[in-house]
Amino acid sequence: MQIILLAAGQSKRVKPIEDKNFIKFCGKYLIEWQLETLKQAKLEDILIICNELNLEKIKIFVKNSKNKNLPKNIKFGLQKNLDLGMAGAIVDNQSLIKKNVVIISSNDVVDVKAYELIKEASKKEKSAMIGYQVSQYFPGGYLQIDKKGYITEIIEKPKEGKEPSDMINIVIHYFADVQELIENLKKEIKNKSKDDIYERSIQNLINDGLKVKAIPYKGFWQAVKFPWHIFQLQRYFLDKDKGQRIKDKVSLISKKTSIAKTTIINGDVIIEDGVKIFDNAIIQGPCYIGKNSIIANNALVRDSNIGENCVIGFATEIARSHLGDNVWAHSNYIGDSIIGNNVSFGAGTVTGNLRLDEKNIKCGNLDTGLNKFGLLTGDNIRCGINVSFMPGIKIGSNSMIGAGITVTQDIEKNSFVRGETKLKISENKIAIKNERDEMRGKLVR
Amino acid sequence: MQIILLAAGQSKRVKPIEDKNFIKFCGKYLIEWQLETLKQAKLEDILIICNELNLEKIKIFVKNSKNKNLPKNIKFGLQKNLDLGMAGAIVDNQSLIKKNVVIISSNDVVDVKAYELIKEASKKEKSAMIGYQVSQYFPGGYLQIDKKGYITEIIEKPKEGKEPSDMINIVIHYFADVQELIENLKKEIKNKSKDDIYERSIQNLINDGLKVKAIPYKGFWQAVKFPWHIFQLQRYFLDKDKGQRIKDKVSLISKKTSIAKTTIINGDVIIEDGVKIFDNAIIQGPCYIGKNSIIANNALVRDSNIGENCVIGFATEIARSHLGDNVWAHSNYIGDSIIGNNVSFGAGTVTGNLRLDEKNIKCGNLDTGLNKFGLLTGDNIRCGINVSFMPGIKIGSNSMIGAGITVTQDIEKNSFVRGETKLKISENKIAIKNERDEMRGKLVR
Amino acid sequence: MQIILLAAGQSKRVKPIEDKNFIKFCGKYLIEWQLETLKQAKLEDILIICNELNLEKIKIFVKNSKNKNLPKNIKFGLQKNLDLGMAGAIVDNQSLIKKNVVIISSNDVVDVKAYELIKEASKKEKSAMIGYQVSQYFPGGYLQIDKKGYITEIIEKPKEGKEPSDMINIVIHYFADVQELIENLKKEIKNKSKDDIYERSIQNLINDGLKVKAIPYKGFWQAVKFPWHIFQLQRYFLDKDKGQRIKDKVSLISKKTSIAKTTIINGDVIIEDGVKIFDNAIIQGPCYIGKNSIIANNALVRDSNIGENCVIGFATEIARSHLGDNVWAHSNYIGDSIIGNNVSFGAGTVTGNLRLDEKNIKCGNLDTGLNKFGLLTGDNIRCGINVSFMPGIKIGSNSMIGAGITVTQDIEKNSFVRGETKLKISENKIAIKNERDEMRGKLVR
Repeated sequence: MQIILLAAGQSKRVKPIEDKNFIKFCGKYLIEWQLETLKQAKLEDILIICNELNLEKIKIFVKNSKNKNLPKNIKFGLQKNLDLGMAGAIVDNQSLIKKNVVIISSNDVVDVKAYELIKEASKKEKSAMIGYQVSQYFPGGYLQIDKKGYITEIIEKPKEGKEPSDMINIVIHYFADVQELIENLKKEIKNKSKDDIYERSIQNLINDGLKVKAIPYKGFWQAVKFPWHIFQLQRYFLDKDKGQRIKDKVSLISKKTSIAKTTIINGDVIIEDGVKIFDNAIIQGPCYIGKNSIIANNALVRDSNIGENCVIGFATEIARSHLGDNVWAHSNYIGDSIIGNNVSFGAGTVTGNLRLDEKNIKCGNLDTGLNKFGLLTGDNIRCGINVSFMPGIKIGSNSMIGAGITVTQDIEKNSFVRGETKLKISENKIAIKNERDEMRGKLVR
Repeated sequence: MQIILLAAGQSKRVKPIEDKNFIKFCGKYLIEWQLETLKQAKLEDILIICNELNLEKIKIFVKNSKNKNLPKNIKFGLQKNLDLGMAGAIVDNQSLIKKNVVIISSNDVVDVKAYELIKEASKKEKSAMIGYQVSQYFPGGYLQIDKKGYITEIIEKPKEGKEPSDMINIVIHYFADVQELIENLKKEIKNKSKDDIYERSIQNLINDGLKVKAIPYKGFWQAVKFPWHIFQLQRYFLDKDKGQRIKDKVSLISKKTSIAKTTIINGDVIIEDGVKIFDNAIIQGPCYIGKNSIIANNALVRDSNIGENCVIGFATEIARSHLGDNVWAHSNYIGDSIIGNNVSFGAGTVTGNLRLDEKNIKCGNLDTGLNKFGLLTGDNIRCGINVSFMPGIKIGSNSMIGAGITVTQDIEKNSFVRGETKLKISENKIAIKNERDEMRGKLVR
Repeated sequence: MQIILLAAGQSKRVKPIEDKNFIKFCGKYLIEWQLETLKQAKLEDILIICNELNLEKIKIFVKNSKNKNLPKNIKFGLQKNLDLGMAGAIVDNQSLIKKNVVIISSNDVVDVKAYELIKEASKKEKSAMIGYQVSQYFPGGYLQIDKKGYITEIIEKPKEGKEPSDMINIVIHYFADVQELIENLKKEIKNKSKDDIYERSIQNLINDGLKVKAIPYKGFWQAVKFPWHIFQLQRYFLDKDKGQRIKDKVSLISKKTSIAKTTIINGDVIIEDGVKIFDNAIIQGPCYIGKNSIIANNALVRDSNIGENCVIGFATEIARSHLGDNVWAHSNYIGDSIIGNNVSFGAGTVTGNLRLDEKNIKCGNLDTGLNKFGLLTGDNIRCGINVSFMPGIKIGSNSMIGAGITVTQDIEKNSFVRGETKLKISENKIAIKNERDEMRGKLVR
């Protein structure tokens, strides 16, 4: 059985994050985690469909990876026309696709159980789709099924209370013979159908008599549709990594670290090789600290993912945030934020993460649904001292942000941002006293 | 003996604090402390004279209070015409006032001893007034007395060196028959006397032959005339509370708290039920920490009163300040400040508390007499990140202060304040390096 | 043998530092260190040549000093015409200068060994100069020597690769009969020679047959040409002071200090009498903490020199910096900075010490050669809260810097600097919630 792993999505809704596949959780790329899970389910014949921007990067990653838990047989396809979505991904790579396949998306994260269920179903059914069971309304595509559990229709965003079942469609789709689907996709494309060609084709096949079994699944599911979904995944992967390490008897805190005696570590924490933690730093789990990162004196890291080679400087607080590799913070508060790779913050810079009116924070023109959300950045950013970022601000890659400003708008990539500084300089006519003994006296304990 | 507790003062000079009677010290309202002290002196027949704004609030407080140390017999009067001051308070409530009374003010704080002295005097004298003995000049009303210790005149603010005695008039005035005074007050009001009608009437009675004994008193006395008087009271009530707890064998630090092992607690400290103190926080007494408040990692609280349900966040310093209930601070410096209820400060926000020229700080158009004084706020305030408050600034209730600004003027209540942000955005033409290994090397210890 | 100690240099290139001689290292003035080293070499007949600005100050220092390690016989000369440089210093003080002399500069710091070498040479040679041996190119005056080690020419800044020897000229010059030199200097001055008259005269004497032996020297040498040279000297003097204390069995950390149990002290540290260090402060050596200074809670001092009577307040970081006496910092980051005497910083103020482009930092129009360099100040400065200083900024003495501004330009002495504050104030129409229980719930650990 071949896995068609769709990884060509344009990641538009997570901008300025360039490519969802390369978001790292606990030191592993999202796509790496996906491949590991497939291997766990003994699904090792993989076709990854990439786009022109990430094809080489994914190839190189797979080629150079020393991770022994990746599937053995990984091939690569290229989707040229990204506007055609999933339909384009499949049609563009027709020649590489076998008959008996499971189509999955690189940014739908599920437990290995979901793959095991679809594999099990493949032994009995001509086709099957995982139905993710929800206990409350979710604005997605619901599966309408007949008495025997076969899908009759996929109903997109029904009104609340009008859901046809408790199952929503997530992209884990089995086809004993995917060629039927491909022919239908081609026909729809020829007819210049727009939007949801893939879903429409499946509906066509169902209408023409294809039996598609709905497979109920109750475990973890989280798509990376919007950046703030990263927070849920961060906690999920930390738990998963921890479980794996406990199973493999690998210690959660590497012994190749230098951790001061006065460091305080609480809760679930994974600390990698080469990490240095200085006196009076506090790590309040759940936390992941990547290779060779430094947590300096009096820093507090809580409920966060710190990448490799980061430096979390003196008196910095990183709270409920996801930091990429090579992030340098120094006397900052970074809360509820998603920070890319190779980003540095000058001392005194703060990410606002709560509106004065405490309403939900917008990111671009989207409501995050969160009343706490901070900064969202791309890669390669330098930020000066004493900068104030409003909640929900996005900073594009390769940008520099000058000192002492309040950033109240999103910043496009490749920007250089500074404030206007008007100083009024006059003659100082006030004598400056040298004696402060009285004041000092008050400090004595 | 009936106590006439004057509580209708307009609190104008403590604005934006709404009502002095409801400033909390060590978890108890000022008026609650006053009532407790009266009960201690076994003075339990109380008439509280309120104004239209606080009558209901005071009634409800007395009705609902679970404090067992309040006098049993508390009645309420209403002063309608606040412009007539103490005279109006008494005349408006003539029908509720008995014959044998002590008139006191709700914002003159004294030891129980002062009440005991006036009670003692009441056994021998037809009338008496407490004379607070000062060891240095004080700009108040001095008592001129005859050889037998009876008052001949109250001299308002004599010149320094011209004081008629060492006693100043504080409002603890006994009258065996207060009706004489009331009749005189009514006559003066009819004659359209302005200002100090009450004091004038007493002088009239003295001139007409009333014997008013001056009762020297040396203990604590502090009126809440200006906001900064709160600091003195804070220390006084902490000591009083501590003394009471020691006497009652109640521990100063509740056992229903969660205090991290690495928390450092020095000096006189009262910590209430439900308080949580996190690792590496420092409490440097004298300090009071109210119910259910959280003192987070690396915070420093010194010489301060923290109300209930406060959150003193990471790396925040609260020094020599009085915070109401539900105050949220996060990576701030709040020094020599008086903060109302339900106030929050964004990270990096600082209260300036020292002028560059180190001169006395003005609050409104008043000289505080202090070279260190910070911020003074009302209730219900939200303040953004990286705000700078100049020393002595007042913020009215129900206001919001935007991020990154320097607040150089008083803010009226119900205000929304923000800065002008002009960003200059150009193309960034500088390549951002990824390699910082050299810099990292320097951090290794 | 008389030492001519040239101390009249105008310190132009270290502005706003007023006088290099009075920079303190480990509690001693630079000139004090120089005099101590001379005494160590048993050179006790000293003529200090001052300028009009520092003559009295140096005289008073020598007169009042309780330092027992200063030479016994110190006299003072005055250089009137500073434009003539070293030549002027000598000619102006002809009458005070003996025959057999060593000419040295007050701001070339060397090991005692250098003086011992010149003293040794004086026994055999008519004149001699220390040649500081460099292992890589240095932009100074190189000594060209003959086969017997006598100097034939001093070649100023030869091209790299064209150095005539590995020795550069530093001002430790012995003359058995300095009168020859003086006559030549006077002739050159008469001829209106400009620049380098002193060096030209020596060359004249060599050309006329004077044998000047080059004495190779390999130890420490550092001139205070630019302010950032202070950093090298700081480390040098700390080591020297430490060595001396160990030799004299004087403890590095005075017992007349008050150091909290939780204070962390690592590395080489000298802590003087009267110092107070509060809980959770960290001293990361190499560090010197001067008399009666206070290091408050949670402060971090690393690789720095802290003068006398300083107060390093809560959560302040002082990194790789040189602070004079009476410096008050409070919740600041001061990195790679040189701070004068009697300087204070409001909370939240930060010295930027790294450019966004990570290039070398300029100070005035000079390239410091450093990619990390912070603030450089004179004396008597008051700085407000939340100020941002750009890297390499210079602040002149007797200045005041207002709150909340970004200082992007050098500030002349006697300046009063403030920003423009434009606040937009409108009516707040948003109801401010009082209930934050949900948010508080998330804080519980």
